[in-house]
Amino acid sequence: MIILNGGSSSGKSGIVRCLQSVLPDPWLAFGCDGFVDALPAGTLASDEGIVFGADGGVSVGVEFRVLEAAWMEGVVAMARAGARVIIDDVFLGGAASQERWRRALGGLGVLWVGVRCEGAVAAGREVARGDRTVGMAVAQAGVVHEGVRYDVEVDTTRAESMVCARVIAARVG
Amino acid sequence: MIILNGGSSSGKSGIVRCLQSVLPDPWLAFGCDGFVDALPAGTLASDEGIVFGADGGVSVGVEFRVLEAAWMEGVVAMARAGARVIIDDVFLGGAASQERWRRALGGLGVLWVGVRCEGAVAAGREVARGDRTVGMAVAQAGVVHEGVRYDVEVDTTRAESMVCARVIAARVG
Amino acid sequence: MIILNGGSSSGKSGIVRCLQSVLPDPWLAFGCDGFVDALPAGTLASDEGIVFGADGGVSVGVEFRVLEAAWMEGVVAMARAGARVIIDDVFLGGAASQERWRRALGGLGVLWVGVRCEGAVAAGREVARGDRTVGMAVAQAGVVHEGVRYDVEVDTTRAESMVCARVIAARVG
Amino acid sequence: MIILNGGSSSGKSGIVRCLQSVLPDPWLAFGCDGFVDALPAGTLASDEGIVFGADGGVSVGVEFRVLEAAWMEGVVAMARAGARVIIDDVFLGGAASQERWRRALGGLGVLWVGVRCEGAVAAGREVARGDRTVGMAVAQAGVVHEGVRYDVEVDTTRAESMVCARVIAARVG
Repeated sequence: MIILNGGSSSGKSGIVRCLQSVLPDPWLAFGCDGFVDALPAGTLASDEGIVFGADGGVSVGVEFRVLEAAWMEGVVAMARAGARVIIDDVFLGGAASQERWRRALGGLGVLWVGVRCEGAVAAGREVARGDRTVGMAVAQAGVVHEGVRYDVEVDTTRAESMVCARVIAARVG
Repeated sequence: MIILNGGSSSGKSGIVRCLQSVLPDPWLAFGCDGFVDALPAGTLASDEGIVFGADGGVSVGVEFRVLEAAWMEGVVAMARAGARVIIDDVFLGGAASQERWRRALGGLGVLWVGVRCEGAVAAGREVARGDRTVGMAVAQAGVVHEGVRYDVEVDTTRAESMVCARVIAARVG
Repeated sequence: MIILNGGSSSGKSGIVRCLQSVLPDPWLAFGCDGFVDALPAGTLASDEGIVFGADGGVSVGVEFRVLEAAWMEGVVAMARAGARVIIDDVFLGGAASQERWRRALGGLGVLWVGVRCEGAVAAGREVARGDRTVGMAVAQAGVVHEGVRYDVEVDTTRAESMVCARVIAARVG
Repeated sequence: MIILNGGSSSGKSGIVRCLQSVLPDPWLAFGCDGFVDALPAGTLASDEGIVFGADGGVSVGVEFRVLEAAWMEGVVAMARAGARVIIDDVFLGGAASQERWRRALGGLGVLWVGVRCEGAVAAGREVARGDRTVGMAVAQAGVVHEGVRYDVEVDTTRAESMVCARVIAARVG
């Protein structure tokens, strides 16, 4: 199992697709975006669920955390059942988020990957992609890495997704 | 856990969103489309993976089945961990597909839902949505239900998604 | 040129794709959604531009109207240049919106098509599609048709997109 | 009017969104992708229309050219009607494509922008974005610029979309 953590517009999804392309075995890719899509529309924009602010802030409630914990157990179960799994996530709680994954993992082996990108550059890419609220990239660029420990770190500020993927792939297997 | 089975363009996704809206508790929704999106691009269009033919035919190989089995175990694990989970799937193998889910479920309770739609009507909706290969709807309309046993069946040929969702919701909890 | 008018979630886009499929000649399809996508992100959510309210209300400002007028002239120019063009639009201003198209058309021939759908049914489809703010369908179901004159009208409340498309196609050419 | 030309995955769309963000006036953005979306499904994959090959090759037929010419006249008409318009296009025919635009423009002023990206880098981004047939980026990287004359050129191989947009914006107005 590989878990990538990075802020919004840091380039996680692109790295994941490149990783799937360069790794010789088939890896399944899931991420926090897919989990949010699985939530009922009513849970989005609810204080109990997840709220995306107009300024790019994101806050989550108890209901979100309960469902997220079940989702984490499920993707770990896929790995235990024999699938190779890549996760891309945004550790809004920094070290506390990593700890939640650790609990779900039990003793299962994982490669922790930090995906960094300078806030100003990520903010420009946020405008360029056009499908994210402006402000998320800067708000998350630093905070998601606070207290998190990685096996490997990449920085997309100046490196292409494919180059980052090759660095990570060299640490797999 | 709720598992919906129906052919392409039979209206499963719409029913799922309506179900999430009418059910009082939050339910997570996953489906075979999301699983296919999680596969590496190289597994799509590979004989070992899944091939979408130009005529609407779909064939899957060994690699697909192995990863799918792990995915099934994972979503069942989410339900065991306390999440309410709705699955929408296309039982390309009919009864054999249902049996695969039964094995993954262990003894976990599930509501089996059949989503039917006359082939000709589904074919028209396939043209109207514009994002599916023409031919899938007709090819799958009947075969996915062969030998499958349901707790409740809905038919979208003449009933709206919301109406079908209310019928299903009445059978939940 | 064919211009379809109907409220949000009344089924215009599906009818357009079916029309393109059943008409023997190639028709280009453009719509107000495409025009909104062409606007700068800053014009969305600006009083001068277009604001999508959380309750499903939509209001447009002067800047929007000026750019829309230029867009209308442009799509009419495509038709004058020999292309067959289908437009799907939401006449938020009812008869006044139709008048704006008439001015842009000059004397160019057009088939005016009304796409009706009962508000309650459109509201259910709005939930089912999951990508529109709930409330738009009901808010627009009636008002967009006020004072508008049509050559042909279809009602998607009980008729499939493909059936409606055949009714319209019978009036073309 | 601003016309950007560059190969697939060279970063045109991102630059356009950044341009819309940094330019003080509102600019409408249209592109060849939007034109292709406006075509009937039957025109895609037809020799008369446009065929996207499995190897990334793209070929267009007579019907495509006729409709494209009408589309070009239409977007130029939007500019003549007072709208500021940005176009992003892929000059599959190089200088001949530019000549087609020149004919449509009549004497209307335009800023010609070349968007370059080294083929190998564009190919990596093609894998990272995951929604384009692999091979298009390399096939188009050079050929689209053959014989084309520009007012300003940017290279996304090492420069961010936002940086390129600022270079272009400095040449506007």
